[in-house]
Amino acid sequence: MFAQSGFIAVDWGTTNRRAYRVGGDGRHDAEFEDDRGVLSIARGGFPAATAEIRARLGDWPLLLAGMVGSNKGWVEAPYVRCPGGFDELAANVVWTEPERSAIVPGLSYLAGDHADVMRGEEVQMLGAVARGLIPADGLACHPGTHNKWVLLEGARITAFRTVMTGELFNMLKSRGILADWLQGPVEVGDVFLSGVREGLKGGAMAADLFAVRARVLLGQANAADAPSFTSGLLIGSDVFAGLGEAAGAVTVIGRPDLTRLYAAAIAEAGREATQVDGEEAFLAGIIEVARRIS
Amino acid sequence: MFAQSGFIAVDWGTTNRRAYRVGGDGRHDAEFEDDRGVLSIARGGFPAATAEIRARLGDWPLLLAGMVGSNKGWVEAPYVRCPGGFDELAANVVWTEPERSAIVPGLSYLAGDHADVMRGEEVQMLGAVARGLIPADGLACHPGTHNKWVLLEGARITAFRTVMTGELFNMLKSRGILADWLQGPVEVGDVFLSGVREGLKGGAMAADLFAVRARVLLGQANAADAPSFTSGLLIGSDVFAGLGEAAGAVTVIGRPDLTRLYAAAIAEAGREATQVDGEEAFLAGIIEVARRIS
Repeated sequence: MFAQSGFIAVDWGTTNRRAYRVGGDGRHDAEFEDDRGVLSIARGGFPAATAEIRARLGDWPLLLAGMVGSNKGWVEAPYVRCPGGFDELAANVVWTEPERSAIVPGLSYLAGDHADVMRGEEVQMLGAVARGLIPADGLACHPGTHNKWVLLEGARITAFRTVMTGELFNMLKSRGILADWLQGPVEVGDVFLSGVREGLKGGAMAADLFAVRARVLLGQANAADAPSFTSGLLIGSDVFAGLGEAAGAVTVIGRPDLTRLYAAAIAEAGREATQVDGEEAFLAGIIEVARRIS
Repeated sequence: MFAQSGFIAVDWGTTNRRAYRVGGDGRHDAEFEDDRGVLSIARGGFPAATAEIRARLGDWPLLLAGMVGSNKGWVEAPYVRCPGGFDELAANVVWTEPERSAIVPGLSYLAGDHADVMRGEEVQMLGAVARGLIPADGLACHPGTHNKWVLLEGARITAFRTVMTGELFNMLKSRGILADWLQGPVEVGDVFLSGVREGLKGGAMAADLFAVRARVLLGQANAADAPSFTSGLLIGSDVFAGLGEAAGAVTVIGRPDLTRLYAAAIAEAGREATQVDGEEAFLAGIIEVARRIS
């Protein structure tokens, strides 16, 4: 029903949301982004928060993805266990208003000791495959607060692993012994890449982080380099964990300011990296889900 | 001069301070602890803050150690480069009031890429050696906001490495996606030890941390176990980094509530661990420094 009539697609995350008006022809003609993320909505506030979206983009059905389907969101949409592709996502949407609003579920992964979950990135990842921006088989990552390393096989997500690099960097920046030095910009350059090389060794990050401070105190490094070095260290460690045994090129999908950092780190690890804008991929993905909901 | 007349010894850290009145006979007969750590003292406030100490313990000379000698303290006491023992510390005290107050310097370590600093732990470590609580040669660690792994050779500190485990745990507890689940107590038991084993693998901590959340969401673990598991994971990773190639027993020195956690983790790694109370060791150490200042 969504695809025929047109609908509003919403990528509703923890701290912000992006909404797009998609016509029956599959093209989007209006959008907005604001900071009304899931954590800013009070319990019981989602009907009003979705009414705001319709007030801005028109009275259309809503197809929602991301943390809006978590236990802190509007209605919980249970995770679909991997492997998962568009068919599994579409078959498991949860209707919050009959024939008017549905939430796309996230994915879960369990293998031996490892447990993992995602909500929202799967729509972007699969959308990028549908649009031909990334191969249907291979390794991709989605940097953000929680970076997701995803294994794609036959246009489905078969395994994934989350590394909370963004959250750790934000924490280190907001308080603690390195905070004063992490306020400046992160630049991709020699300093960032030297941090990446340190992280790629797979050493003890909690020790390497303290050394950032000690090097400055002992005159071995400049305080102004701390943001780039620390970001490189965390991302290098993330890439070390994520590349694992897989071979071949890696796609980095998401916000361009983050994908450029990961692409540089992956290249430093000797692997080819391609960047894809997550916004375009999200639209492609949510339209594919919509097409499968009758 | 300190040792003959008696003096006040102060272990003045970032967030609190402990002061002890030590008599000419080397015994202490009065003490107090409060939260007037270095970060709580305004610029220029140290004369008043030390006057408070004398108002409580008497008008005696002061011998100060810890972050009070850092660039955020009263007067900066430049680091003494390793190897360092009591002689080097005593020879490099910085007088803040002539013949009335002196600050014991910290230690620095530089080797290849590695840079490190400490302030305060060295007095406890060397004091424990002087008191016969730990061997003059061997590996010791001092858990706290920043855990210090220290190599002792001939009753001097020859190398060390800092792991900011305590700071990371406090950050995770105060904000972010795990914070709600980390408020409970950490117990040494099966859950803690399973976290330790995970950390001892030396994997990517930022990935393992996210899995804590995913396991609970997917019903693979209880939320109530998150504090013990996460503490075990961080400490296991710390122990993995710290044990390195060294063999033999390890001494854990510091606050008993922390040394018991590290001792359990070191034992899980198959190494013998002995616990030493840091307070007693501090007093022994500062008295040794005092004896060397004429």
